[in-house]
Amino acid sequence: MVGPTAILLVCCPDQRGLVAKIAHFIYSHNGNIIHADHHTDGVADLFLTRIEWEVAGFALGRSHIAEAFETYAQEQGLFPRPEEVRWHLDFSDRVSRLAIWVSRQDHCLLDLIWRQRAGELRADIPLIISNHDQNRAIAEQFKIDFHTIPVNPDHRVEAEAQQLKLLQTYNIDLVILAKYMQILSPDFLGQFSQIINIHHSFLPAFAGANPYQRAYVRGVKIIGATAHYVTQNLDQGPIIEQDVVRVSHRDDVTDLVRKGKDLERMVLARAVRLHLHNRVLVYGNRTVVFA
Amino acid sequence: MVGPTAILLVCCPDQRGLVAKIAHFIYSHNGNIIHADHHTDGVADLFLTRIEWEVAGFALGRSHIAEAFETYAQEQGLFPRPEEVRWHLDFSDRVSRLAIWVSRQDHCLLDLIWRQRAGELRADIPLIISNHDQNRAIAEQFKIDFHTIPVNPDHRVEAEAQQLKLLQTYNIDLVILAKYMQILSPDFLGQFSQIINIHHSFLPAFAGANPYQRAYVRGVKIIGATAHYVTQNLDQGPIIEQDVVRVSHRDDVTDLVRKGKDLERMVLARAVRLHLHNRVLVYGNRTVVFA
Amino acid sequence: MVGPTAILLVCCPDQRGLVAKIAHFIYSHNGNIIHADHHTDGVADLFLTRIEWEVAGFALGRSHIAEAFETYAQEQGLFPRPEEVRWHLDFSDRVSRLAIWVSRQDHCLLDLIWRQRAGELRADIPLIISNHDQNRAIAEQFKIDFHTIPVNPDHRVEAEAQQLKLLQTYNIDLVILAKYMQILSPDFLGQFSQIINIHHSFLPAFAGANPYQRAYVRGVKIIGATAHYVTQNLDQGPIIEQDVVRVSHRDDVTDLVRKGKDLERMVLARAVRLHLHNRVLVYGNRTVVFA
Amino acid sequence: MVGPTAILLVCCPDQRGLVAKIAHFIYSHNGNIIHADHHTDGVADLFLTRIEWEVAGFALGRSHIAEAFETYAQEQGLFPRPEEVRWHLDFSDRVSRLAIWVSRQDHCLLDLIWRQRAGELRADIPLIISNHDQNRAIAEQFKIDFHTIPVNPDHRVEAEAQQLKLLQTYNIDLVILAKYMQILSPDFLGQFSQIINIHHSFLPAFAGANPYQRAYVRGVKIIGATAHYVTQNLDQGPIIEQDVVRVSHRDDVTDLVRKGKDLERMVLARAVRLHLHNRVLVYGNRTVVFA
Repeated sequence: MVGPTAILLVCCPDQRGLVAKIAHFIYSHNGNIIHADHHTDGVADLFLTRIEWEVAGFALGRSHIAEAFETYAQEQGLFPRPEEVRWHLDFSDRVSRLAIWVSRQDHCLLDLIWRQRAGELRADIPLIISNHDQNRAIAEQFKIDFHTIPVNPDHRVEAEAQQLKLLQTYNIDLVILAKYMQILSPDFLGQFSQIINIHHSFLPAFAGANPYQRAYVRGVKIIGATAHYVTQNLDQGPIIEQDVVRVSHRDDVTDLVRKGKDLERMVLARAVRLHLHNRVLVYGNRTVVFA
Repeated sequence: MVGPTAILLVCCPDQRGLVAKIAHFIYSHNGNIIHADHHTDGVADLFLTRIEWEVAGFALGRSHIAEAFETYAQEQGLFPRPEEVRWHLDFSDRVSRLAIWVSRQDHCLLDLIWRQRAGELRADIPLIISNHDQNRAIAEQFKIDFHTIPVNPDHRVEAEAQQLKLLQTYNIDLVILAKYMQILSPDFLGQFSQIINIHHSFLPAFAGANPYQRAYVRGVKIIGATAHYVTQNLDQGPIIEQDVVRVSHRDDVTDLVRKGKDLERMVLARAVRLHLHNRVLVYGNRTVVFA
Repeated sequence: MVGPTAILLVCCPDQRGLVAKIAHFIYSHNGNIIHADHHTDGVADLFLTRIEWEVAGFALGRSHIAEAFETYAQEQGLFPRPEEVRWHLDFSDRVSRLAIWVSRQDHCLLDLIWRQRAGELRADIPLIISNHDQNRAIAEQFKIDFHTIPVNPDHRVEAEAQQLKLLQTYNIDLVILAKYMQILSPDFLGQFSQIINIHHSFLPAFAGANPYQRAYVRGVKIIGATAHYVTQNLDQGPIIEQDVVRVSHRDDVTDLVRKGKDLERMVLARAVRLHLHNRVLVYGNRTVVFA
Repeated sequence: MVGPTAILLVCCPDQRGLVAKIAHFIYSHNGNIIHADHHTDGVADLFLTRIEWEVAGFALGRSHIAEAFETYAQEQGLFPRPEEVRWHLDFSDRVSRLAIWVSRQDHCLLDLIWRQRAGELRADIPLIISNHDQNRAIAEQFKIDFHTIPVNPDHRVEAEAQQLKLLQTYNIDLVILAKYMQILSPDFLGQFSQIINIHHSFLPAFAGANPYQRAYVRGVKIIGATAHYVTQNLDQGPIIEQDVVRVSHRDDVTDLVRKGKDLERMVLARAVRLHLHNRVLVYGNRTVVFA
């Protein structure tokens, strides 16, 4: 089997030679590429790529790759407008640290924990934050620290300060809003931005509150769920994954909720896995998913 | 095989005994039920049913069934509040008369014609109306009358009068807006209301103009199409059928349009077929589809 | 909300008047039907129905309904060939008793337990049987009795005797093979036949062992899962539910297994729920699913 | 918009440096890559790639690219074991020539013609071959040559000789068996091998004759269609595309056939388009689809 790999994600203005030069950087250090996928967005005139190669046999030590690539990029003129470039290097055996935020519902929480235990997610889950106490038993059962931080308009600043402190203390890489059902302030998002939310509708349909109730009233024949990065505009962030399920006149709101739960946990889990495997590149309000 | 059948659709306030009494009406005249499906909407407190039985062997002649049922319903007290009741009797060998309205695109038009020729739709298509001349050749090829009625805000009243006249002349039962892309006035809809439209998005997402462009900008991972009855509120009518297809960052707007075309013709064709087979009951802004 | 209901499932040779007469039986005792769905299989000349009505207000006590219906059916000549008739009466508040059989994999087991705890399945789960000890901790965590019965060709008779004894002791209504991966003998099936299995392929494709490996070798673009009743012919029993997921050349066998797990637990859970809600009628090797 | 492009497909034993070297070949001649997708099959130890770059600005004339790449590959040692290498160069503005073979059904034929007319398929369709005369009118309507070649076990050799002659005469690149329903001999396939077939089931389920009838008897809840390259083993060739649709007990064989037709034409059209856009690489009995 393949051992640990290095993964390079790049988003930059398009120009000739990018594939050749980036691949040459890896090859010149004896790297063995096992996955490479490039996308050119002709509308935005951007080049987006994901390249993955084996660490074993690579001539550069892990801690020297980023600097070497930086130097190489300058020499080769890869990024003439550095301010428009984002690139990111990661390793397939790095274990991310997740904080799961929940409200009263437990289906997405349990599903993520089960998948993490089953080895589907390359991550630890040291922390659960909730505005209710309801899911504490689950946390205890799986020996995950659980912090209840009530949400109250009058004490929002304090609550968010407390939340941010926990993210730091636990050294969290990614927050997952697993049916957290609360809005985060621009201030908060300015300080921590790696956040994935699951919205219980096929966005942009039924953005906002009570999507299943509104889907029922509208009489749709299909319902959906959407996993997206959180931005300051509610339910407007870049979409990572969506899926749908068929419903009929026999389904009342309760049935929509039940069917939706299965969608929500599947869609959220897929999005989290794609993110953890460095398969998602955000640009503007869009994502490239190198699936 | 089964010969011609009678189909009874009923939507009325719920009460005990409706299934028994309606089925008894059919049985008491020696009818052989081959399909019966009932739905109770607990929220609206309505009973909705579709019953289909063989004409052969039925003791009542076709032209006497409706009157006999009316009388029976009164005797049995089926419908204590007649103003809240709608029922409809049809026969499976009645051939509906369709007018297809198109603009420049031809994919839904051709698809419907092909299905009608292939025997999938129990209907004749004597009339095509368009605001452009573009699809006249198709009409001629299939020997369907084609009328061009330009749409112009200044002459809308005249245009709609002309359209209504044609629907009368051709004795049209159902209008299909097969990518007609124009809005009909409340006046028009007051005079002719059996109209099915195909909208090129997963409603209520991207109601209105340019749904594919807007879906591209929003970065959705799935696009859809929606067939619905036309009401005075644009893209808000009762939904008959929806379906979706997955897209990715590799798809530009042109690809969304191309993939969407396949959705549009499938979804529209299914909705038209369901309507023609008397499988759709509208109540409020919802439909029951007895599929 | 609707209170407890009675559900009558009937499968019998078709004849005129069945809908009317069965509905009349309910109405004549003041029953309020909330769901009724009938199907006529023209090929097999069978009538299949599911009728559900409120217990509240019904003139017959629960324990007298079956006998009264039997008498009524005789008087009315509903079932002239009784040997070809199967009917079944159940109540929506009866709680079924499930035994889940597993091997080493835990995803279907955990999923069913979670759904039962979440109120999605109208059932108790007092018993887990396994041929391995692996999942004992899960059973203990949820306080479910766990019995390990090793499977060994030389001691199959004893093992099955032990299994049957447990089913009796725990008064089990339904066995769920949640990735049990072992074959049951005709003898066993002769003594206990209410068994649902999940097969990890889109049957009849890849019946038998190692379906994901074989799907990979065949290069399919879609994989599936199938929930079916167990019969003496391996993977040939009546299908209750199937679903599929798209795969690509990027997916190796490990990926198929991972994606398949999500399918397996969804499809199995849907099938179990349909069965518990008396929505499945088996006839021949087919099912009617009154969804 | 992007002008004409060159597309290079390569399948070869994996080694370090392939991405870098192939991309360098293009860059060194001033090529602007607009699409590049690589796949490493770890099981077969193969590297498979599709690279597409703009013809405009490329330093080599179209007719010199292949030879230059051959020379470059030798110099760089890209392909140490040439007998295990297949590569293919094509241009996005080359128009393929298709022969559609049909039997009595017309839905796939009409669909392909419609898509070709609508600009979805980069191809001409100069020739239709059938074993029946039934679809001649369609051919005439669209001004496509139509040849009836009856299939008769006693004259198979002559018939296939006649068919091969037509493929040569019309300079055909790709044969599409659009519900041709006849088997081609190994001899024929030895002489012409670019053939796509649509099979009306979810292969490998229901390979062979009468799949819908058999699907009905088996009581499946989902039916499918499969587009694959034709090989000497009936219905066993490399799969390009598959899709499915849900069915229920309400669907008899006629309904399966009707629903299946929609699947067949969609799946076949997608496969043909993928092939024409050089997005399919066959290796062993598998395909990589660079979608």
